[in-house]
Amino acid sequence: MIYNIAIAGATGAVGKELIRLLALRDFPVRQLTLLGTERSAGRQITTRFGDIQVQAFSEERLEGQDYVFFATNGDHSKQYAPIAVSKGAVVIDNSSAFRLDDDVPLVVPEVNPEALKGHQGIIANPNCSTIQMVAALNPIHQYSPIKRIVVSTYQAVSGAGEAAIAELNEQTRKILDDQPFEVKNFTKQIAFNVIPHIDVFLDNGYTKEEMKMVGETLKILSDPNIKISANCVRVPVIRAHSEAINIETEDYVGEQKARELLDDCKEIRVIDQRENAGYPTPIDASESMYTYVGRIREDISCDNGLALWVVADQLWKGAALNAIQIAEHLIKAK
Amino acid sequence: MIYNIAIAGATGAVGKELIRLLALRDFPVRQLTLLGTERSAGRQITTRFGDIQVQAFSEERLEGQDYVFFATNGDHSKQYAPIAVSKGAVVIDNSSAFRLDDDVPLVVPEVNPEALKGHQGIIANPNCSTIQMVAALNPIHQYSPIKRIVVSTYQAVSGAGEAAIAELNEQTRKILDDQPFEVKNFTKQIAFNVIPHIDVFLDNGYTKEEMKMVGETLKILSDPNIKISANCVRVPVIRAHSEAINIETEDYVGEQKARELLDDCKEIRVIDQRENAGYPTPIDASESMYTYVGRIREDISCDNGLALWVVADQLWKGAALNAIQIAEHLIKAK
Repeated sequence: MIYNIAIAGATGAVGKELIRLLALRDFPVRQLTLLGTERSAGRQITTRFGDIQVQAFSEERLEGQDYVFFATNGDHSKQYAPIAVSKGAVVIDNSSAFRLDDDVPLVVPEVNPEALKGHQGIIANPNCSTIQMVAALNPIHQYSPIKRIVVSTYQAVSGAGEAAIAELNEQTRKILDDQPFEVKNFTKQIAFNVIPHIDVFLDNGYTKEEMKMVGETLKILSDPNIKISANCVRVPVIRAHSEAINIETEDYVGEQKARELLDDCKEIRVIDQRENAGYPTPIDASESMYTYVGRIREDISCDNGLALWVVADQLWKGAALNAIQIAEHLIKAK
Repeated sequence: MIYNIAIAGATGAVGKELIRLLALRDFPVRQLTLLGTERSAGRQITTRFGDIQVQAFSEERLEGQDYVFFATNGDHSKQYAPIAVSKGAVVIDNSSAFRLDDDVPLVVPEVNPEALKGHQGIIANPNCSTIQMVAALNPIHQYSPIKRIVVSTYQAVSGAGEAAIAELNEQTRKILDDQPFEVKNFTKQIAFNVIPHIDVFLDNGYTKEEMKMVGETLKILSDPNIKISANCVRVPVIRAHSEAINIETEDYVGEQKARELLDDCKEIRVIDQRENAGYPTPIDASESMYTYVGRIREDISCDNGLALWVVADQLWKGAALNAIQIAEHLIKAK
């Protein structure tokens, strides 16, 4: 079987990676339709599936599609994903629009593939920071339930889109050249700085990004009892998010067992030598399909605690790759 | 009263800041002696106290000093600080050599000034990451004892010395220009990357930097019962360390009370509006004498928990400024 695939938001940071990954993973594509804004319409994109002209997004162009990947904003998904479903497509949505809806599966295929069963046309792709965290924690959670998670993130600028990458590069060069520079996509200078603020502030003082990591993790791990606190911070890294994670489990796991459990996961690469360079960093994870884990050690501040360091390409595993893996899973399960 | 002051390691990252801060704080200097390696000897440095020639460090040059600031490595301090004391000087040592010695006070003046009483000539300046953490946590700890701390750091490269700053700048420029670059002072590329490793690895899987934050905090807060776990990470920031901190206290404090307690500290600046730019970042704290706190909120993952974000210039409050404040305190207490 081969399929008609459409990508909404094909010229954005995630859209571009979807195009690359469909090719890299030999996805069974019959026809690839690239949809974008009026402004990007007409642009020609060279792909493994031919040279394709970007078309302006419209309801009509959702006709005849088997799978539509939405890599647009939440409002757009909210409006058009149900229309794509009504026209017979399965939608895999990268926005936060449907993630916490009871009748929409929120899926990391190696963690909760069973959630895909009986879906009603829309499947939500979790937030990037959530995906790599649950991918790394699930093997441990299955062995002994996690009771509490404290996580601090080191998030790459590409999570804020293409313009944010350009801004980091431009600001950096201007600072090195001692030239004045502009702040546009962030609230403060991002070059040679870190910013403890991603997405809007909520009433409890956490940001929406931080609370996504809470709500989505509970849903994906199907466990409403896990206590989670997140500190989400933007760092001047182009690509791949890192997370320092401290967990407490019901029973004692220990670092040796944790390392074994993680090593047994084919989607995870453990890099954990206690020596120079014996741990993953963003540059190691960039354009890799794996979730990397290192710095695994027993948390000396609590009973049954573990500390670890998780790195993954948030445009791939944290977005485009996970979306494609969802589609692959649906196809395999047919 | 005015004093003879010597700085050992005067041409290093911390030594330079000591010279600037002695001037900025109108420290009562009679004569300033700048000591360095053989290599830097002879170099002329312009200071508020005149143009001073750097001299090669030797025991003789410790003669006649009232206060000697050591901004050299631990081995050097270990060997020469006792000699400086035997010649009648008070030593304020920035290395880790004496920090955990029972008969050496480890001091952050606004936190544990009482520890200075009865010192035996050497006073240890804590590690940079520790200073800003205890400075921010002590007001809360005095109100309700802290039981547990989980901290993840975002540490600037200048903590690794002058050469590390040059390496970040050089690597960054080469990457922007698509040129090959070298890795010298770090274990991996630091430009556009983060590295979860500072100082050597210990048997329990933590790094020495992480365990310094444990041992030093217990000593400064005089409370052996606090449980602490740290994740120390180098980020491509020139100056000022940031820390995402989650604490649990004996009794309920609440974010409003925590904010008041911190606001009442004259060495702390609270920047905590829940809106764009309403929090401190490294560029805000660079070359500032304050410890900045923001993102204060109740930790939703535990009882009596608080989460906060602490930023300070680690070359100033985390090193040179704290050392000078120790000397100022000793002078005032005379």
